[in-house]
Amino acid sequence: MNARRRRRGGGRAARQALRTARVIEQQPFLTRRMSRTEMLSQEGMELVEHNADTLLEEVGIELMNFPEAVSIYGAAGADVDGTRVRFPRGMCRAIITASAPSSFVQHARNPARSVTIGDPHMVFAPAYGSPFVRDADAGRRYATIEDFRNFAKLTYMSPALHHGGGTLCEPVDLPVNKRHLDMVQTHVVYHDKPFMSSVTQPERAQDSVDIVKIVFGEDFVRDNTVLMGLCNANSPMTWDYAMLGSAKVLAENNQCSLITPFIIVGAMAPVTVAAAVTQTLAEAMAGMAFTQIVRPGAPVIFGSFAASMSMQSGAPTFGTPEPALVLLCVAQLAARLGVPFRSGGNLTASKIPDAQAAYESATTFLPALAAGVNFVLHTAGWLEGGLTMGYEKFVLDADQASMMSRLVGGVDLSENGQAMEPLLTNGPGQHHLGTAHTMANFEDAFWVSSQADVDSFEQWELNGSMDSVGRANVEWKRLLAEYERPELDDAIYQELAEWIAVRKASFPDSEV
Amino acid sequence: MNARRRRRGGGRAARQALRTARVIEQQPFLTRRMSRTEMLSQEGMELVEHNADTLLEEVGIELMNFPEAVSIYGAAGADVDGTRVRFPRGMCRAIITASAPSSFVQHARNPARSVTIGDPHMVFAPAYGSPFVRDADAGRRYATIEDFRNFAKLTYMSPALHHGGGTLCEPVDLPVNKRHLDMVQTHVVYHDKPFMSSVTQPERAQDSVDIVKIVFGEDFVRDNTVLMGLCNANSPMTWDYAMLGSAKVLAENNQCSLITPFIIVGAMAPVTVAAAVTQTLAEAMAGMAFTQIVRPGAPVIFGSFAASMSMQSGAPTFGTPEPALVLLCVAQLAARLGVPFRSGGNLTASKIPDAQAAYESATTFLPALAAGVNFVLHTAGWLEGGLTMGYEKFVLDADQASMMSRLVGGVDLSENGQAMEPLLTNGPGQHHLGTAHTMANFEDAFWVSSQADVDSFEQWELNGSMDSVGRANVEWKRLLAEYERPELDDAIYQELAEWIAVRKASFPDSEV
Repeated sequence: MNARRRRRGGGRAARQALRTARVIEQQPFLTRRMSRTEMLSQEGMELVEHNADTLLEEVGIELMNFPEAVSIYGAAGADVDGTRVRFPRGMCRAIITASAPSSFVQHARNPARSVTIGDPHMVFAPAYGSPFVRDADAGRRYATIEDFRNFAKLTYMSPALHHGGGTLCEPVDLPVNKRHLDMVQTHVVYHDKPFMSSVTQPERAQDSVDIVKIVFGEDFVRDNTVLMGLCNANSPMTWDYAMLGSAKVLAENNQCSLITPFIIVGAMAPVTVAAAVTQTLAEAMAGMAFTQIVRPGAPVIFGSFAASMSMQSGAPTFGTPEPALVLLCVAQLAARLGVPFRSGGNLTASKIPDAQAAYESATTFLPALAAGVNFVLHTAGWLEGGLTMGYEKFVLDADQASMMSRLVGGVDLSENGQAMEPLLTNGPGQHHLGTAHTMANFEDAFWVSSQADVDSFEQWELNGSMDSVGRANVEWKRLLAEYERPELDDAIYQELAEWIAVRKASFPDSEV
Repeated sequence: MNARRRRRGGGRAARQALRTARVIEQQPFLTRRMSRTEMLSQEGMELVEHNADTLLEEVGIELMNFPEAVSIYGAAGADVDGTRVRFPRGMCRAIITASAPSSFVQHARNPARSVTIGDPHMVFAPAYGSPFVRDADAGRRYATIEDFRNFAKLTYMSPALHHGGGTLCEPVDLPVNKRHLDMVQTHVVYHDKPFMSSVTQPERAQDSVDIVKIVFGEDFVRDNTVLMGLCNANSPMTWDYAMLGSAKVLAENNQCSLITPFIIVGAMAPVTVAAAVTQTLAEAMAGMAFTQIVRPGAPVIFGSFAASMSMQSGAPTFGTPEPALVLLCVAQLAARLGVPFRSGGNLTASKIPDAQAAYESATTFLPALAAGVNFVLHTAGWLEGGLTMGYEKFVLDADQASMMSRLVGGVDLSENGQAMEPLLTNGPGQHHLGTAHTMANFEDAFWVSSQADVDSFEQWELNGSMDSVGRANVEWKRLLAEYERPELDDAIYQELAEWIAVRKASFPDSEV
């Protein structure tokens, strides 16, 4: 089988997918043509960078259950003290800037769906990791593999989602020790966009790598990045075996690690924006440096996830100004470091896709646009602080995402864009509805929402006074009904199924 | 009576209000500490400015029913051709930059509520001009003076609204030729924030000026700005007597005109962003220059209102990227011109305060924050493209507005903000919930929404699974129930009531 995979090589599967894929509408990933918001001054950034280095030098990083990582850091020049490593000032930055790519391509099995991650681009992926799902008909319930597949289908059908994401929801009906195989298999089979590795254990990251070798061929995977894994720090100042071990597997295989301090400000970090930013920088630099020590040049993304907190309950809160400030500041620091940045998403604490959900989501997503985030996880579906993946919320968020290439794409200042001819020839008080310029440009002049109702009040009432949720409910059902699986080479499909069956049989049975 | 008013002078009423006002929570207007988003490059701005001058030079402005304005422009150097005036290149800009203030104070009768309009500040005012109102109990209906008073009360009770606005809704139960008096009276009596003039006819602007002379004293009004009037162009390239005549009255009295091209892109301007920006600049410069010719140094605000349009129905649409791009570009041009800028608001085409309303609102409001808009009209209440003022929407929008001072206020980099002591002494893996630094900072660390539900799903369900609209419905009723009219000098109250009664009697009876 290895020989067969080796022979295939060079993205044969990818080329095949391109030849046979149905034409499904897809927007290209975004290219920004506007300034990045500057929340920190030059001096402010230097202060935070200095403080992060102090933190790495004096406190350092605790490695949980991962003695090998301690040795790896030590051999690269860190000060080792048991399970703690401390970093001479500037060490992590020097390692990162020496080899981490500022931008890279993550390949999809359909080459037309491959994405470039890094400035000036932005890539949107669906939400990640919810144990529950919700729709307007059935309410909230535990997620199953059926839900997972539904969200893979919806992602495929959503033109504004450039990336397939990872744990679209947690299929709790499947055994914990095997479900990662079903999830990765679903990403391969149900859509043709780039997707994410399992990272719950390094062995599962390795399973993910082995699967993409079947799909893309071993040679192609050796030379190209087709997987991205979400590796969260155990803030404050701790990395564990599951996450950093997965990052090691991915880096060794030239695949991408998304190194993300996950901070509820006031709980995992001191209760100020500057402290959360400082700690995020320190933890992320340690993690990113690790990937570059393991394999210089391995693609890595600087991630940041920050939430505020309810003073009453300690629950994380979203759509508040403080996490937006953290996002804007860390984006500036990531740009200075010269690595791609991940943050943002349509985050909310609301249980349902109401006005609260939308306001909170926009107050994370729009700052992510202003910050020039390169990879936006949780773009669509997130409810209830990430506990729930919502069907209607998914549709509403994806609709919002579909406008964003225009919002960051700058202003057309071509002759046609300037429109001096109609401006000068259409007299005062004369409307522009029927001019030749309007007729020539009207069809593509405005982004059109697929979800907003812009009818008159009377027409809207005649149509049943439907709200956003009602319309989105109709839409996700339509998308699932119209879904057709993108073509995949039969041989790959079979080899993948066989490999997964053998792999599953190697695990003990486990309780769900 | 004139003598009495003259004697009063110097803001006696204002000082009295300060002494006696109940303590109602009020946030200060915003001070920005972040960069303005740059959508246009330096060359892009120069190109648009050049094109706007070409438009003023070759097409010029049509003056509708306002021969006096033609003469005024002509005497200042414009080329007059019947009702058309054309401007030599650079004329309008030179007039504006010679005398228009970059920033000014609009005084409130409670001096603690006075606002500074201009960089680096932002002032929020409620929505303006809806003939309908809506609440979750009674649905949509024509607005009355009772609704107008309710929204004046809600504005008074909303800490994030710095300004009382103007036509909070259109009291259609009152005669057209007299209702402006009731509206201005309500602004004087029901709240103590700055407010707006009537501008539906120049005579009504004069009535507004006469009323504020009673409230503030003639001398005070002569030397200070207490009124602002919303003067919209009849785009394309037309100013009429009602609007520009009102601007003339306000300027003559040293009061502020808000000069706003109101453009549905593709209808009142060619269907591109650059064309809408160019035309906005041309129309606004002509209007602003007019105020400076009438009275050099009179406060004036550069306004911009742009909507996109449905290709199917021609209805204006909101929360789309194109109007946000217009906003961001015009903000840059206003900053270069050195005058305060008005745009933004929580705009939506949705009939109800659902997720559509919130997403669309945020996609206007957050770009206004990024653009550094100085005066945000329509901050709270707007529904259905401005046709409806919503009670629940008002509460939800005002809640969103209350976070914005933090979002634009920059990052605290003081020693306490940097928090190096807790960062360095709290070990890896140790939470920060109970540290001395957290305890000292927790209470004020995060903006807290008054409307968002951040409870657990189970608690939320126990509490009745309420959505945003349900909570906002409870809130506006609570605010109205707790409202108490701010104190006002009895003599002023009486004089105002008498003056209005006499003035009303001078008009013929009219049909409602």
